[in-house]
Amino acid sequence: MAEVIYPRMAVIGCGLIGSSVIPAGVVGEVIVADASEAARARIVELGYADRVTADPAAAVEGADLIVFATPVLAVGDAARQAAPALKPGATVTDVGSVKAAVSEALSRAVPDHVFVVPGHPIAGTEQSGPGAGFAELFQNRWIILTPQDRQDEPYLDAVQRLADFWTALGANVERMDEKHHDLVLAVTSHLPHLIAYNIVGTAADLEGVTQGEVMKYSAGGFRDFTRIAASDPTMWRDVFLANREAVLEILGRFTEDLQALSRAIRWAEGDKLFDLFSRTREIRRGIIAAGQESAEPNFGRDHRPAGSDGETKPQ
Amino acid sequence: MAEVIYPRMAVIGCGLIGSSVIPAGVVGEVIVADASEAARARIVELGYADRVTADPAAAVEGADLIVFATPVLAVGDAARQAAPALKPGATVTDVGSVKAAVSEALSRAVPDHVFVVPGHPIAGTEQSGPGAGFAELFQNRWIILTPQDRQDEPYLDAVQRLADFWTALGANVERMDEKHHDLVLAVTSHLPHLIAYNIVGTAADLEGVTQGEVMKYSAGGFRDFTRIAASDPTMWRDVFLANREAVLEILGRFTEDLQALSRAIRWAEGDKLFDLFSRTREIRRGIIAAGQESAEPNFGRDHRPAGSDGETKPQ
Repeated sequence: MAEVIYPRMAVIGCGLIGSSVIPAGVVGEVIVADASEAARARIVELGYADRVTADPAAAVEGADLIVFATPVLAVGDAARQAAPALKPGATVTDVGSVKAAVSEALSRAVPDHVFVVPGHPIAGTEQSGPGAGFAELFQNRWIILTPQDRQDEPYLDAVQRLADFWTALGANVERMDEKHHDLVLAVTSHLPHLIAYNIVGTAADLEGVTQGEVMKYSAGGFRDFTRIAASDPTMWRDVFLANREAVLEILGRFTEDLQALSRAIRWAEGDKLFDLFSRTREIRRGIIAAGQESAEPNFGRDHRPAGSDGETKPQ
Repeated sequence: MAEVIYPRMAVIGCGLIGSSVIPAGVVGEVIVADASEAARARIVELGYADRVTADPAAAVEGADLIVFATPVLAVGDAARQAAPALKPGATVTDVGSVKAAVSEALSRAVPDHVFVVPGHPIAGTEQSGPGAGFAELFQNRWIILTPQDRQDEPYLDAVQRLADFWTALGANVERMDEKHHDLVLAVTSHLPHLIAYNIVGTAADLEGVTQGEVMKYSAGGFRDFTRIAASDPTMWRDVFLANREAVLEILGRFTEDLQALSRAIRWAEGDKLFDLFSRTREIRRGIIAAGQESAEPNFGRDHRPAGSDGETKPQ
């Protein structure tokens, strides 16, 4: 049996991540606050929480762990509302994709008698809302904690306890400087989302090609991009605004490289294309070896057509 | 029982597509030509063909259907080699991702007494080689035929017969002008591949972020791009060179839109971001409704961790 790590946990903002972060067994009571009436009704229906409220202050009262899981630019406000009710010695964390801005907002909002340990699980789907959550979301995924620059025993204990909590959810824990986190994630998450949103937008706006054609022939590669371009608009607006500097820096590099690639195509420099296309294969092999990706062709989706027995039958 | 559509079929270049295009039941004898000794050995091992040769001319002798499935810039040469042995009345087709250039190369290479009907199945995986092929690859995918501008009965019959062949493989058949095909595919396939190759290259070349970090935290979105960036380098080099004009045109639109998006981030124009991110969701819904994409979150890959029973257990 798993040991209870936090007798009482509060989740502020219960969407895909907020609903997935409630682990069976390792927390006692669970209180959820959500600003949306529809989300609250759904959480009650799903039976995720012992109590559901609209008020962050009511939710955090007596809680040992408070997880802010709202869009990143909403964390500051929610924390300010919750602040007066926070129990001394409680751990306050979040799950946002940007760490420097959120860490600052949290630290300003809450009193000194709680431990602020920002965090970010590198996991998710393109879906959103409490109904999209599931328990295995964090299995074998990384959670990055960006602790404050403090070395006192009680704080270090609080960080370790939060690490244990994430381990109980199946995640691998990494500690990182918050600025570095924001740069790494600009590469591995924010730029990919920006590019995906952009290409889907470009395709939608063309005159010479209809939207119907784009959809029909999307199996040529385009459909892959539509997955992350279907992610939550509010969440992603906030990410780009909160991590503006790192995103623009990485975007600058991407654009520079794209210009070079464009030039190689224009001048028919086949060798340059071939070299790049060969190098990029290695990275995927590394990701599969690191357990972060399926090795199946097409992510495995096409081997299981609806109504088939899911078997692959090479002739 | 399926009816035999072509008594004898020759496949020139037997990689992922070439090996998937050999349908059980609707062709009689199958002869395969491949320039690679390793590929030929593998094809023999897999039992895909009645006869395997290195020589396109030897392969096409007496064949009723000839499918060129080499990289697009190699089609011309292969067709020139095969030309003297082509049987009058045979149908010559291909499976390349670019149609105007390949159509021209084919038409120049082969004699007037065969029917040239270029084609392109919108299906594939990131893998390559004969071992990567499988029979269901074309199930519910589109095959675009770009027939020549001829209205004579024998030619129209040849086009219809080729359409029947693809139908027997489970594909949906569409006829299209070759120039339009090349523009549509520049959007739905070529630009996505170019962008994916580019972003993976950018990520590999950064100084501030290690390749290890890129791989470790790739579940934030980046890993999706590595799939198509792991596609065959020769095939894709040829596609970009053969469809240069359309690719550069679409790339220009993409870059323009990306500059606008970049500017919106710099000036914190949250509404512009939110509007785009909301619009792009619709396109994915359309693709799923069109049967060209899995509706499962994360393409379904994360719901089936290795060793699990594949069940989703929300708490």
